[in-house]
Amino acid sequence: MSEESSMRKDSTSINDTMEEEVEERDPERNPLNEPLLKRNRTLSSNPLALVGAKVSYIESLDYEYLTGFLYFVGINFLLTFVAAILCVCFAPTAAGPGIPEIKAYLNGVDTPNMYGATTLFVKIIGSIGAVSAGLDLGKEGPLVHIGSCIASLLGQGGPDNYRIKWQWLRYFNNDRDRRDLITCGASSGVCAAFRAPVGGVLFALEEVATWWRSALLWRTFCSTAVVVVVLRATIELCHKGKCGLFGEGGLIMFDVSDVTVRYNVMDIIPVVIIGVLGGVLGSLYNYLLHKVLRVYNLINQKGKMYKLLLSLSVAVFTSVCQYGLPFLAKCTPCDPSFPDVCPTNGRSGNFKQFNCPDGHYNDLATLLLTTNDDAVRNIFSTNTPLEYQPSSILIFFALYCILGLITFGIAVPSGLFLPIILMGSGYGRLLGILMGPHTNIDQGLFAVLGAASLMAGSMRMTVSLCVIFLELTNNLLLLPITMIVLLIAKTVGDSFNPSIYEIILHLKGLPFMDANPEPWMRNLTVGELVDVKPAVVSFTGIEKVANIVNALRHTTHNGFPVMDGGVVPPTGVANEATELHGIILRAHLIQVLKKKWFLKEKRRTEEWEVREKFTWVELAEREGNIEDVAVTKEEMEMFVDLHPLTNTTPFTVLESMSVAKAMVLFRQVGLRHMLVVPKYQGSGEIKDYLYIFPEIQDAKDTRDKNRVSPVVGILTRQDLLPYNILAVFPHLEKSKRK
Amino acid sequence: MSEESSMRKDSTSINDTMEEEVEERDPERNPLNEPLLKRNRTLSSNPLALVGAKVSYIESLDYEYLTGFLYFVGINFLLTFVAAILCVCFAPTAAGPGIPEIKAYLNGVDTPNMYGATTLFVKIIGSIGAVSAGLDLGKEGPLVHIGSCIASLLGQGGPDNYRIKWQWLRYFNNDRDRRDLITCGASSGVCAAFRAPVGGVLFALEEVATWWRSALLWRTFCSTAVVVVVLRATIELCHKGKCGLFGEGGLIMFDVSDVTVRYNVMDIIPVVIIGVLGGVLGSLYNYLLHKVLRVYNLINQKGKMYKLLLSLSVAVFTSVCQYGLPFLAKCTPCDPSFPDVCPTNGRSGNFKQFNCPDGHYNDLATLLLTTNDDAVRNIFSTNTPLEYQPSSILIFFALYCILGLITFGIAVPSGLFLPIILMGSGYGRLLGILMGPHTNIDQGLFAVLGAASLMAGSMRMTVSLCVIFLELTNNLLLLPITMIVLLIAKTVGDSFNPSIYEIILHLKGLPFMDANPEPWMRNLTVGELVDVKPAVVSFTGIEKVANIVNALRHTTHNGFPVMDGGVVPPTGVANEATELHGIILRAHLIQVLKKKWFLKEKRRTEEWEVREKFTWVELAEREGNIEDVAVTKEEMEMFVDLHPLTNTTPFTVLESMSVAKAMVLFRQVGLRHMLVVPKYQGSGEIKDYLYIFPEIQDAKDTRDKNRVSPVVGILTRQDLLPYNILAVFPHLEKSKRK
Repeated sequence: MSEESSMRKDSTSINDTMEEEVEERDPERNPLNEPLLKRNRTLSSNPLALVGAKVSYIESLDYEYLTGFLYFVGINFLLTFVAAILCVCFAPTAAGPGIPEIKAYLNGVDTPNMYGATTLFVKIIGSIGAVSAGLDLGKEGPLVHIGSCIASLLGQGGPDNYRIKWQWLRYFNNDRDRRDLITCGASSGVCAAFRAPVGGVLFALEEVATWWRSALLWRTFCSTAVVVVVLRATIELCHKGKCGLFGEGGLIMFDVSDVTVRYNVMDIIPVVIIGVLGGVLGSLYNYLLHKVLRVYNLINQKGKMYKLLLSLSVAVFTSVCQYGLPFLAKCTPCDPSFPDVCPTNGRSGNFKQFNCPDGHYNDLATLLLTTNDDAVRNIFSTNTPLEYQPSSILIFFALYCILGLITFGIAVPSGLFLPIILMGSGYGRLLGILMGPHTNIDQGLFAVLGAASLMAGSMRMTVSLCVIFLELTNNLLLLPITMIVLLIAKTVGDSFNPSIYEIILHLKGLPFMDANPEPWMRNLTVGELVDVKPAVVSFTGIEKVANIVNALRHTTHNGFPVMDGGVVPPTGVANEATELHGIILRAHLIQVLKKKWFLKEKRRTEEWEVREKFTWVELAEREGNIEDVAVTKEEMEMFVDLHPLTNTTPFTVLESMSVAKAMVLFRQVGLRHMLVVPKYQGSGEIKDYLYIFPEIQDAKDTRDKNRVSPVVGILTRQDLLPYNILAVFPHLEKSKRK
Repeated sequence: MSEESSMRKDSTSINDTMEEEVEERDPERNPLNEPLLKRNRTLSSNPLALVGAKVSYIESLDYEYLTGFLYFVGINFLLTFVAAILCVCFAPTAAGPGIPEIKAYLNGVDTPNMYGATTLFVKIIGSIGAVSAGLDLGKEGPLVHIGSCIASLLGQGGPDNYRIKWQWLRYFNNDRDRRDLITCGASSGVCAAFRAPVGGVLFALEEVATWWRSALLWRTFCSTAVVVVVLRATIELCHKGKCGLFGEGGLIMFDVSDVTVRYNVMDIIPVVIIGVLGGVLGSLYNYLLHKVLRVYNLINQKGKMYKLLLSLSVAVFTSVCQYGLPFLAKCTPCDPSFPDVCPTNGRSGNFKQFNCPDGHYNDLATLLLTTNDDAVRNIFSTNTPLEYQPSSILIFFALYCILGLITFGIAVPSGLFLPIILMGSGYGRLLGILMGPHTNIDQGLFAVLGAASLMAGSMRMTVSLCVIFLELTNNLLLLPITMIVLLIAKTVGDSFNPSIYEIILHLKGLPFMDANPEPWMRNLTVGELVDVKPAVVSFTGIEKVANIVNALRHTTHNGFPVMDGGVVPPTGVANEATELHGIILRAHLIQVLKKKWFLKEKRRTEEWEVREKFTWVELAEREGNIEDVAVTKEEMEMFVDLHPLTNTTPFTVLESMSVAKAMVLFRQVGLRHMLVVPKYQGSGEIKDYLYIFPEIQDAKDTRDKNRVSPVVGILTRQDLLPYNILAVFPHLEKSKRK
């Protein structure tokens, strides 16, 4: 015991002498401090210093730290509990960032319950809870999702069950405008999160959107302009600290513009090192996160209780580490040249005193016992080469690597940006300290570059990250270096694995369609692809109700070709020709059945008959279930004229078309169904076999024996996905490996 | 005379007293001044002051000003002459900015001789000449064109006649990579012009490119990163004034970051006014420039001499105005609080002394007798509310409005950015002076916002302009206001006329394909469109040489459908079916004829026969003229197997498809030919009528009488252009007007 005491004496002799002075002078000097922390500090600053003290004194101190610890962990636990219970019980889709699902939606894949009012509510409350709980997650992803939810709800006139049925709202009730609104919402979310209007637009462009039009560019720009004006006005209103921490730093969150960036040719070396390391670490992070998420999936599948427990244990672990680790750090004496107050207590900002004596600060507490935003601001701080000890930064980096891996998959709204920025800034600053003597670049800028490199290494964005970092840090002279770092990190990362969002998309099993077809797709024709599918289910222009009901009940198809037999084409003499009239949607067929728009005899209807029965708005609806439709036996024998409800201009491809080109068409034009037409022109006829159910195999055989039909098959998104094709044509996998 | 003298005395009394003092002290004080200007200044600073002096003295002074004037005009005349003669005689495509042509190229329209070595050379020398001549034009457009030329030349391995035939270069020898390279070149050009790497990428995205892929985003980003690194390194090398004016202002050209942007809610009013005025003025500029360009087109068509004379007269007019107008401005006394030297002589910068006495400067000379870049820098200068008199700014604005209209169309390389920035900054600063008492916003920022609003009002870009202005001015806090101004100006402008580049594209008659189809296109099917065209010219799979030669000679088509008659489809019993094999390109047919790959009998060839005859590189070539091909009479009776050279996966549409959707497909996928296939399926057969020439009308009649052919027609870009369709279907024009 005496040995330990003397050892401690050597290492913390300054602390001890300071301590005694403090005890006397403190009450007057720090009237604003929080009672708990104040007492901690005045009684003793270093837990190790307690070893030699009296036992009763020790116990009282232990008690103080324990109370603080319990408050800290307890409140964080409660906040996490609120966030998690909401997500688990009311809106499972609100967990996670939501960006992959939005990305998939804009690609044409709708996740159910993604943009509802419940999801919005849970996301807002849950995100507040999770961020306040000090978990290692950001509010960026959730804000993007919140923006998209609001956009979607506004566009459709309110929540699903309480929609306002204003006439003009129908103009937005189509896929394209819904997509545009959600894109605008997403860019507004990024803008609100980072106060980066241009970065928001570019994020939506580079990462989220699949189809981009010039009109969409200025629409998103317009929405971020509104966001930034509202933000600016709110910051002005909150100028005098009326709104807590909101608006700190004005429009620029992590301002590093006070440092004049000086670099010469030799500084290219550290820049390249940051880029390469960022790429390697980023892809390593992607790899490990993938593994962790797979384990979490297994746990989460076991039930709601497991989900909740997982979230809560992560929260407790985070709090324990955040409270406990700062005790490992040595106290640093305040330098009078620091521009800020030092040390600080009971408020946000740099130089937390925590367990240190007056005139000293605990650099690790400065980084851990604060909001994530402030942590970034602290670690980005420039012109402060001696503020952080390398060991503290190392602990910080290691902790956030672990937290960044285990926090993302829990059932609370969570963003990926901030965890990666925290990790990256830690490694960047560490690198800055190591390289200090060999470079002109400030440590704070090293932290910025480290964050940028890790982001690029994990998310693989370039332009949008560059602009977001420019708008976050307000240092235009840093731009050339940032660009190089981003490009190197992205290139290095791409050589290992796909981007984190692609990994999550794949994990979630969303049928996302990539921009570029796989090379082996050129060796397969759509004809071959259609041949292995069940026979196409089609209708004649005037169809029996029974056939329609059968087809809808026995298949899950969303589109059916409509053909007319025995037609005389206007230009020919082939009076036995079959006409491909178009494609009819399941939703419209269900509308017909629900409204019982049946005909007693086989006849073509007039336009006014259709207009009388169906409104514009009804046909725009895409809902309805065949199980809800009741058709009597007599009605089954009646007919429906499908012509007026058929889309007569379907996109088609010849059966000889390669799958690669078909996929380009499918994605570029944004299709749901694509008809495959024969490359042969012969006499064809339609037979009743086309809707004999459930004997599909027979129908297929019959088809093969017959003449050329005007439709060979129908392709959907699922048919064109690489892994679905490879499941049927395994030999292509081999050619891929070659 | 005595009256004039006394009037002058009143207005310039300070000048006169200053003058006398100066005359004695001058030689020591200004040893660095240029001889000519120095003498002007020492003898007398204000020409009006000469009126009352002795006649011989007047003559000597007049002589000085005259010499100065003659030097100024003469040198500018010579420089313009060099630029114009090069453009007129060697590369007419080098005149103008080149951006519309690049935009058209990326849309699929190739302008001949646009990316050659001669054009590049003329563009570089011409642009240097034109900019040095003090003409009211920028180097941005030319730099974009230069970037694209270099990219194109690098991609194809050098100039057309001296191409390096390296093997790996063939990888770039396809349309898509050429487009990508040219896009990268264009963004590098903007980056080099404005030192705005992100702005360059966004300019390429928003204004230039038609098809945008995620890969292209980081490729352009990579190229601008290289540009900015090279720029940065060069600026560093030139740091000590070794390279003249290059590198002034470092990486930020028009830095206004020294002013702290303060604004409150009421400042929204001037911002909205700037935006609306910018939109109105921008569209007015577009309207007037359109008229001027049409007049210039008439003049330029008369011959090379007229072109040259037009350019030279504009140059002389510009020089005369620039030298003469400053005499109208009053001299302003230097304020000791000015941060720069005042007055200045014989170097670039603010506060030109020109004809003023010591301690005074001529504010109009400061703006006119300088480079365009410096003029912008001067007028953007912040915290200098009294530097410019309103009358001087008004003269400046009026002059540059006139010059901006008359300079653009002359036969020298010219950009539109800088003229519009000059005009806009003038009107912005004028507005700032008028609104001075009512707003917190600095006059320099008013100038910046005015320039941005006029740019948006004329060019209708938003995001890219916003980023370019951010990178030009380095003031992130200005961003929210800039965004509002840009959006308002664009919206106001759009309600009057299309953007300036669209107007130029239309004037040049380039078949540019818009992103969105016209609404009336939905009421027309491609079947109707094909019906009014001459009958489709098609070949059978194994075709007679004579038919091919005939078809190539009598039509200008670039693609021909290939069909096989009497085929037995694998799935049917229709042994008289006709197969649509695909489409063959004119270039490949000419290759066949040139290489005389003829068969004595009708037979299918083997794969090795084709490989032996044609290489990969040869088939990628798109050149060749049917007139260069000589075929003997015997050869005419031989056959060619077209199957191996046919593209078997053409994009097709049903004849019932609407033109609007066909156009979307055509543009989104980036096609050159689109086959129209019948919606009917009947027995079809191929007849020899398909290539009876020149009796096309007969062929059409025959076709109509026959059965369904697997191809109804073929559509190209020209067929889908709105004005071409309206020429044939004038009734659609009426429905458009409704």
